Amino acid sequence: MKILVTGGAGFVGARLARQLLKQGRLDGRSISQLSIADMFPPPADLSADPRVRVHTGALLQQSELFASGFDAVFHLASAVSGECELDFELGLRSNLDSTRILLEGLRRAGNTARLVFASSVAVFGPDAANPLPDLVGDNTLPSPQTSYGTHKLMCEYLIADYTRKGFIDGRSARLMTVAVRPGKPNGAASSFFSGIIREPLAGVETSCPVSPDVRHPVSSPANTVQGLLTVFEASRETMGGRLALNLPGLNVRVGDMLQALEDVAGPEVRQRVRFERDERIAGIVANWPRGSTADRALALGLRPDASFKAIIEQYIEDCRQPGCPADALRGLNS
Amino acid sequence: MKILVTGGAGFVGARLARQLLKQGRLDGRSISQLSIADMFPPPADLSADPRVRVHTGALLQQSELFASGFDAVFHLASAVSGECELDFELGLRSNLDSTRILLEGLRRAGNTARLVFASSVAVFGPDAANPLPDLVGDNTLPSPQTSYGTHKLMCEYLIADYTRKGFIDGRSARLMTVAVRPGKPNGAASSFFSGIIREPLAGVETSCPVSPDVRHPVSSPANTVQGLLTVFEASRETMGGRLALNLPGLNVRVGDMLQALEDVAGPEVRQRVRFERDERIAGIVANWPRGSTADRALALGLRPDASFKAIIEQYIEDCRQPGCPADALRGLNS
Repeated sequence: MKILVTGGAGFVGARLARQLLKQGRLDGRSISQLSIADMFPPPADLSADPRVRVHTGALLQQSELFASGFDAVFHLASAVSGECELDFELGLRSNLDSTRILLEGLRRAGNTARLVFASSVAVFGPDAANPLPDLVGDNTLPSPQTSYGTHKLMCEYLIADYTRKGFIDGRSARLMTVAVRPGKPNGAASSFFSGIIREPLAGVETSCPVSPDVRHPVSSPANTVQGLLTVFEASRETMGGRLALNLPGLNVRVGDMLQALEDVAGPEVRQRVRFERDERIAGIVANWPRGSTADRALALGLRPDASFKAIIEQYIEDCRQPGCPADALRGLNS
Repeated sequence: MKILVTGGAGFVGARLARQLLKQGRLDGRSISQLSIADMFPPPADLSADPRVRVHTGALLQQSELFASGFDAVFHLASAVSGECELDFELGLRSNLDSTRILLEGLRRAGNTARLVFASSVAVFGPDAANPLPDLVGDNTLPSPQTSYGTHKLMCEYLIADYTRKGFIDGRSARLMTVAVRPGKPNGAASSFFSGIIREPLAGVETSCPVSPDVRHPVSSPANTVQGLLTVFEASRETMGGRLALNLPGLNVRVGDMLQALEDVAGPEVRQRVRFERDERIAGIVANWPRGSTADRALALGLRPDASFKAIIEQYIEDCRQPGCPADALRGLNS
């Protein structure tokens, strides 16, 4: 089986690629080749695997690759929300045109490749005519408030149409906010959901820009990868006719995230987080879903993470693996 | 005020252009120029008007035109549903890429042109996970079952994002099935909704491919044009944040359409329609909405046609205007 992971050098993509290589099989078939297409080269452990082929560069340049006959595609590559708000053309190019090039290549290959598209909870938003419900579900009317969410939604519908026509066997899974992300804070407005856990564990003081009462659906990296794999392996019949579904999210208050941090790491670690309201970020986050449901994903056997404590414990365990920066847990007494 | 009507040589587009020229004003401003962009040249009465400029050819070639500083745009051009099912690239090119070229041109012009996009009731469809409700409304989750409906929906969301960014002031209005259309039957599965009225009035025998119990939302040409004008003139505040709305449709049974035909034109005319089930067409129509609501359009003061009888009377009156084929009412005793 030949697999393609776009965005396979990114955080979720590399984790998915690693999991695929580890299990060696997908949907009952042996994995002979795993291609990683990304703007950047993947981590060294991935490129060292003899099954891995690396294609570095813009997806828009890869139309020949896409037409080369993959059995399975995980399409994760995209410019992130903040970038697309700053650079409108970048969003159109990276998140809409690139998906079209990919879909056309798969169609040209003619083997009805199965594709999982990483869509996003960002397809939902409030709207004067239609305020955001307390929980966004599979049947909530999307109303994206960013170009990123707009392009994700457009791709969902395009993939549904390519699937209806029999050109591919596509499914779209809406990822919840992934936490805890390793590495540095980034420009994303959601960065603090990881930062308020990651920084104190590294011994670094940090601020939380929103009230402890903010609630949001999050998912651990491992649970997110499991969601993508399960949606891939689901039968077309199980998926139902409409192809976009929510992956499960743990709906959690910021205050409860910090309580979990204290439970896992102690009060000194938690005290490295101070509340310092940032009106810009708080304003953006106020337009985000306060929680989600995922009925169709639950029917596939998927579940949200058990608790935010379990999410933190997963992060700590990841940080103890080889290759993780030595100072990631510098703030943890253990 | 400089206005652009794409698809202005088509049936609805030409009627809209005529109405604009007749009223001479739009949204309180005098119309100095009306550009018609279409694959085909417009009817002679339109091109004869000194305010009209004609741009014949594919929209994809008109990027310079689109950037030339229109104040108002009615974007009606599109390949129809049946064509797009037969030719997948045609749909992408005519209905998605052309809209993008138009939007980019308007953005480049930099004057925040107001744009009304003719979307379609075809954005709605049944789905295994989400069956079609009896009436589709502004808040019904779209699930298009054709490429045509898919691309219309994608454009709705793209227009909403261009509007959110301040590049244009866009609104999308979902047209209901327009009846009674003049001229010849065409390949559209909806062709019979006009044919069962038009043909008998012309003295021609015709068949109805679906049961008299089929119900569908329809709108007269005049009411459809009124809908586009009213949506144009609505304030941004009245439109609310989400930009696609249903235009009002008259939800009418096929049997009641024929009863209205008998009421207007007598039993001999009605008897020119025989029921002859066509499984292909009946199958397609079974996936269409059986009716619609239009709460947001009603709030703008729009209404469905008063009755199907009034729709037939409008058609007969249109056929008595100069320029209409002499035999259009040949079957009518009057």
